[in-house]
Amino acid sequence: MADEKACAARVAKLRAIMEERGYDAVILRNNPDLRWLTGCERTFDDEVAHTAVITPTRQLLHTDSRYYNTFCERLGANTAWELDETITGAEQWVADRIREAHARVVAIEDTCTLDFYDALKVALSQRSVACLLPRLHGDLVKLRAVKDSEEIELMRAAQRITDEAFRHICGYIKPGVTEQQIRAELENYMLSHGADGLSFGTIIASGPNGANPHAQPGPRVVEKGDMIVMDYGCTVADYHSDMTRTVCVGEPSDEQRHVYDVVRQAHEECAAMARAGVIGKDVYDHSVKVISDAGYGDFYKHGLGHGVGVEIHEEPNFNRRNMEPIPAGAVITIEPGIYLPGKFGIRLEDFGLVTEDGYEPFTESPHELTVIPC
Amino acid sequence: MADEKACAARVAKLRAIMEERGYDAVILRNNPDLRWLTGCERTFDDEVAHTAVITPTRQLLHTDSRYYNTFCERLGANTAWELDETITGAEQWVADRIREAHARVVAIEDTCTLDFYDALKVALSQRSVACLLPRLHGDLVKLRAVKDSEEIELMRAAQRITDEAFRHICGYIKPGVTEQQIRAELENYMLSHGADGLSFGTIIASGPNGANPHAQPGPRVVEKGDMIVMDYGCTVADYHSDMTRTVCVGEPSDEQRHVYDVVRQAHEECAAMARAGVIGKDVYDHSVKVISDAGYGDFYKHGLGHGVGVEIHEEPNFNRRNMEPIPAGAVITIEPGIYLPGKFGIRLEDFGLVTEDGYEPFTESPHELTVIPC
Repeated sequence: MADEKACAARVAKLRAIMEERGYDAVILRNNPDLRWLTGCERTFDDEVAHTAVITPTRQLLHTDSRYYNTFCERLGANTAWELDETITGAEQWVADRIREAHARVVAIEDTCTLDFYDALKVALSQRSVACLLPRLHGDLVKLRAVKDSEEIELMRAAQRITDEAFRHICGYIKPGVTEQQIRAELENYMLSHGADGLSFGTIIASGPNGANPHAQPGPRVVEKGDMIVMDYGCTVADYHSDMTRTVCVGEPSDEQRHVYDVVRQAHEECAAMARAGVIGKDVYDHSVKVISDAGYGDFYKHGLGHGVGVEIHEEPNFNRRNMEPIPAGAVITIEPGIYLPGKFGIRLEDFGLVTEDGYEPFTESPHELTVIPC
Repeated sequence: MADEKACAARVAKLRAIMEERGYDAVILRNNPDLRWLTGCERTFDDEVAHTAVITPTRQLLHTDSRYYNTFCERLGANTAWELDETITGAEQWVADRIREAHARVVAIEDTCTLDFYDALKVALSQRSVACLLPRLHGDLVKLRAVKDSEEIELMRAAQRITDEAFRHICGYIKPGVTEQQIRAELENYMLSHGADGLSFGTIIASGPNGANPHAQPGPRVVEKGDMIVMDYGCTVADYHSDMTRTVCVGEPSDEQRHVYDVVRQAHEECAAMARAGVIGKDVYDHSVKVISDAGYGDFYKHGLGHGVGVEIHEEPNFNRRNMEPIPAGAVITIEPGIYLPGKFGIRLEDFGLVTEDGYEPFTESPHELTVIPC
């Protein structure tokens, strides 16, 4: 069952924003935000099937019959949430709630789709309801950026499975297996060892495929001399892990070894910089400097790291756009990479907790280059 | 590589809509639509990282460095698509393209998020660009509803793996295994036998959990006498399969057998009704009638079926809202169910092709209740 106290504290944080800004109500449609606010684990899937309206005194949640009983089980009998499974359009339901509440300033999450917004305006107009619709723009995701101890424990648990899976898969890889086979073996291991789900589509990119940072696993057969980029993770109670390791099948060439060392250096120097108060862009800029100084600046174009929680990508970020200080309690990845088209790619990723004093990785797999004997 | 001829025909269909409505350009951000238009398989993942602007003469696609090379490989050298990986906000890139094209009527997919729409309006304003932004509301998904022969073949291939996996898992299930173990075994089988990915989070719901139509697999241990609802599928080149079978562990009770027969009857009578030109709601209404006549009307609340393609849920639908005729070439599920809280659930789902003459299921697994010996 949901941790009522932790979830009440989350709703209270949202209501503090509402009071500060003079919102009479907020409309929420984004599943990760609803997962965080309700505490209902393994209830939300990929469907946009749930809508919440929060007022200063009420917590209303509209869902449908496919999910209703699961919500009841997770929330328990004494919940502050008022559940509704009426068969109606979500925009109709919201418009009725706004009319009932006599709300004038109704903030709407701007992660909602334009068609929901369009339909809501029509539904309000049909009811002669006049209200302002200011945007909740990243406000929930900012609240979610600072994790509580239960959330941290869930991500540690997910990472333990992820680390075990890495040890397992290193014993499975050999010349002759395909990327798809490695992926199936890796995912099966995690799902058979306590994972509730996968963090995202596992990336297994061997040889030249590794030069595409978001390559999807395919029929390519692993050969001696390949570097293999493996970027994967799992969920425990909807909280994600995220890790990348690049292994070499057989002894690496001098170039492979050298590029690996550059990526590792960038990773470890950035990890040493990470602490509460550091500016996201400054840590990213340092990774660019290390990689550029080594002559590979043209081959590293993505961000250095992203927050992780009930979503695989959330706030805060180590990237060129984040001019804000990283808060204590953030959980964030560090994942520099170098991608040489036609040759190979290398990425090294941990994730962990930002504290007042530094950065505590949840990841325990080694940074040393793993060489698969063959 | 993408089938250039099929994809050119898809772009031509979109341009016919543009011409008819007087659109100077359209803005597309929805990955399934972009997958369909570009033909790029295993390139799109869950990230909203790509934006297309289509004009009467140009096909512009903005992406980022993580995907750029994959697009190049999939599209080939002679593609009509102009790829761009400039590091900039998507809304800035779109606003520049609209300014260049001197476009006045620019249709935007209303599946985009409100924050992208807000940002685009600001970016246009900063450039002193005045344009109308009518909505593309379901227009692409309507085009996608009629499948070509290559799309049908991919879904048949995905379903062959799905059927094989059903035969496999029936030999694996026994009292003592958990829902999570069944799920891991089932998914591993599909990924090891040619699937590129999973259609959605596999549903394995045993005993009373089966009464929650979208239950997620958990630690519950399967017992003799359980019904187990298994709703799952896989993807081949991004095209989905979707199947549900409910099996009984040991001999079913009279009630289990009876409810199964009612669901099967609803399924088969609706399948016999399905053909091009039938109204979606009429087929749905028949499923409600069969189940209500048997006394279970309160325990069947979801739709009867949905279209399947590059998305697991797309148009057209057999549900209470679809007053339109189903087109020939649609691929659609039939999946009535009955859910008895505290007891068990039963759903029976095939998917297949709607033709002028009827309905050709891709699914070959039997409709007879499978009894797991124990």
